[in-house]
Amino acid sequence: MPEALLDDISHRRYNPLRGSWVLVSPHRTKRPWQGQQEASNRIELPSHDPSCYLCPGNKRAQGDVNPDYESTFVFVNDYAAVREQQAEYEPPAQDGSLATRLLKAESTTGKCYVITFSPEHNVTLADMPASTIVPVINKWTSIYTSHLDPHSPLAEAARPTTMPPSGITNGSLNSQPKQQYRYMQIFENKGQAMGCSNPHPHGQIWTTTSLPEEPESELHHLKQYRREQGGSHLLKDYAKLESEKGERTVFENSSFWAGCPWWGTWPFEIMVVAKEHKRALVDLDERNKEDLAEVIAEITKRYDNLFETSFPYSMGIHQAPLSGTAEEIDASHFHMHFYPPLLRSATVRKFLVGYEMMAEPQRDITPEQAAKRLRDCGGGLYRRKL
Amino acid sequence: MPEALLDDISHRRYNPLRGSWVLVSPHRTKRPWQGQQEASNRIELPSHDPSCYLCPGNKRAQGDVNPDYESTFVFVNDYAAVREQQAEYEPPAQDGSLATRLLKAESTTGKCYVITFSPEHNVTLADMPASTIVPVINKWTSIYTSHLDPHSPLAEAARPTTMPPSGITNGSLNSQPKQQYRYMQIFENKGQAMGCSNPHPHGQIWTTTSLPEEPESELHHLKQYRREQGGSHLLKDYAKLESEKGERTVFENSSFWAGCPWWGTWPFEIMVVAKEHKRALVDLDERNKEDLAEVIAEITKRYDNLFETSFPYSMGIHQAPLSGTAEEIDASHFHMHFYPPLLRSATVRKFLVGYEMMAEPQRDITPEQAAKRLRDCGGGLYRRKL
Ligand SMILES: O=P(O)(O)O[C@H]1O[C@H](CO)[C@@H](O)[C@H](O)[C@H]1O
Ligand SMILES: O=P(O)(O)O[C@H]1O[C@H](CO)[C@@H](O)[C@H](O)[C@H]1O
Repeated sequence: MPEALLDDISHRRYNPLRGSWVLVSPHRTKRPWQGQQEASNRIELPSHDPSCYLCPGNKRAQGDVNPDYESTFVFVNDYAAVREQQAEYEPPAQDGSLATRLLKAESTTGKCYVITFSPEHNVTLADMPASTIVPVINKWTSIYTSHLDPHSPLAEAARPTTMPPSGITNGSLNSQPKQQYRYMQIFENKGQAMGCSNPHPHGQIWTTTSLPEEPESELHHLKQYRREQGGSHLLKDYAKLESEKGERTVFENSSFWAGCPWWGTWPFEIMVVAKEHKRALVDLDERNKEDLAEVIAEITKRYDNLFETSFPYSMGIHQAPLSGTAEEIDASHFHMHFYPPLLRSATVRKFLVGYEMMAEPQRDITPEQAAKRLRDCGGGLYRRKL
Repeated sequence: MPEALLDDISHRRYNPLRGSWVLVSPHRTKRPWQGQQEASNRIELPSHDPSCYLCPGNKRAQGDVNPDYESTFVFVNDYAAVREQQAEYEPPAQDGSLATRLLKAESTTGKCYVITFSPEHNVTLADMPASTIVPVINKWTSIYTSHLDPHSPLAEAARPTTMPPSGITNGSLNSQPKQQYRYMQIFENKGQAMGCSNPHPHGQIWTTTSLPEEPESELHHLKQYRREQGGSHLLKDYAKLESEKGERTVFENSSFWAGCPWWGTWPFEIMVVAKEHKRALVDLDERNKEDLAEVIAEITKRYDNLFETSFPYSMGIHQAPLSGTAEEIDASHFHMHFYPPLLRSATVRKFLVGYEMMAEPQRDITPEQAAKRLRDCGGGLYRRKL
């Protein structure tokens, strides 16, 4: 089997979802590390912090008071990157000048939400049983649903199963948004190493009039594959292949495959892929949602177990745009990415810097090696065993 | 002028060199920062450190002893990401199976060098007068030249002006390399925040049989522009436009424009662009090299002055591939990128995490605001004034 060789030699792997390459240098983990060490994450936190703007009953930056919520809570970001309203900008007309050719801009409006995952200040998704992650998935689904283009085929799918959005303050979720947004990016930054400034378990949701770079590139490749492969779905094919192969699998259940993708860039990068064709959160039934909660619980727990630390990462959901062509919506395939920076221990991370920024992403351990280590650290959460 | 509006509203800017977009949220610098703080860089270092593997006369990992070099010194990286020789890998033949369609890899060989910028352990490019940066540029040029495809039109250009490569140990620079490499990436990671593990001023050079992602994408857009614009060069046009406009200029001289590009992602990102069409280092004459040294000195000094710290960054050179088609080589245009992570102070950086990884790069201050601040902090190096 020629693939075994890839454990030893430098090579590039192709990412068919982005149409890009990554350089893999398995022998490179041997180099000694004398560089920056991350702070380790063993600070003890209270279950309620009176100075935390995410804890129930506390006051936020603009003076709003959080309700005494019991599972999740959503509000409009007090420091949003995009806003619903702003001055109108009309780009200058193309007149063949260098300026109109080389200095292009377009206005973007949108809405940014914060969503807490639990009222408890000192837990993370890794501490939460799957049953308590289901309400988070339900909340994501209701926010996604309430922003859907009413003419989208997804709006149809959403009607029978989804609960009415509730518990969202200073937003316009219950009324139809004034502006039809194009895309909704749901994500979480966890840990100081990933720019997270509050340990209270929470994620973000940024919704924009534009289709951002990454989902656009993925959509392009998903559509292309479908056209070239007689209607089959790239990620459905991929989940099937990986589930059969097993060597990059970290965890799977009947609805989802989770593992270190062939083309992963970050050392312990994980992708979660729906095994059947699901276009978006609204296509998940109750069973699928329970399975997704289980996968999220399993991944985050294994991450923490790996180096016995609260493992930092950024994670996000890719799914169908809120509005788009029929082809775009049908080619979309629900999946999640987990990008964690740690490489060797709780304090030594991988830097994607010089070569990676100028030339090409580069990784040291192979996805197969990473998956094996993550498969092997299942069981209870290490903190609970202490 | 509609452009003034872009100081206040969220918008996206287009990067014609990569064909990609960046989200700009100028109002967002107002949010308070409670997250990770970088260590500040005020450690006093000796001018010679007996335990440094880059100082003159010291021993390296594999036992080699550094010569008593006087300006720069080049050696093959003891922990290289790619190597000259490795087992042969033959990808399985495309048989229409999911595996051959979705799990693609190719072997990559190459050579990695380390280049010191000075024998002094405790200086950085910001401390070095331009005249002492010229030898670094000459060394880059001679390494580039010695790896050029002898059939490239650039080999012709190289012959009359370039000095013979010298002072390179355990490499095969003087003899023709066994394998013709495709691309040479010259770069520097500076500071612990950019994954640099040794403060001794040095950079790296990774040379590969493959054309990496970033230069490939740039080359694609450079070629396309040339075809569409009757033979003119995107970056030559861009430098001319920016030099006339002035608002994104940080520093310029007769050979180079340096400034915060319209589409920059990092808060204080700088691009250095040759004003005339120069395909690669070998096209620079003595005057151009002195001008380039001056630009590098000016940028690094302003970076340090901005927050009165040793400013971390990754920088790199993009230029013509070592071997390629006539069109590729002629479309190439010498330029440098500086990607620094700091945003607000010596200890608060910009994190390109969740949204940026999942959706689209996002920046807070505008390139015009960044350029103004960097223009305004010229003069002597702050450390020398203390
Ligand atoms: O080669 P170094 O300096 O040990 O390592 C540094 O630069 C490399 C090239 O950008 C990166 O791959 C590493 O993650 C980084 O720590
Ligand atoms: O919104 P936060 O959590 O304050 O900020 C964090 O996430 C954002 C979205 O990924 C990034 O743009 C910021 O750089 C990061 O610090």
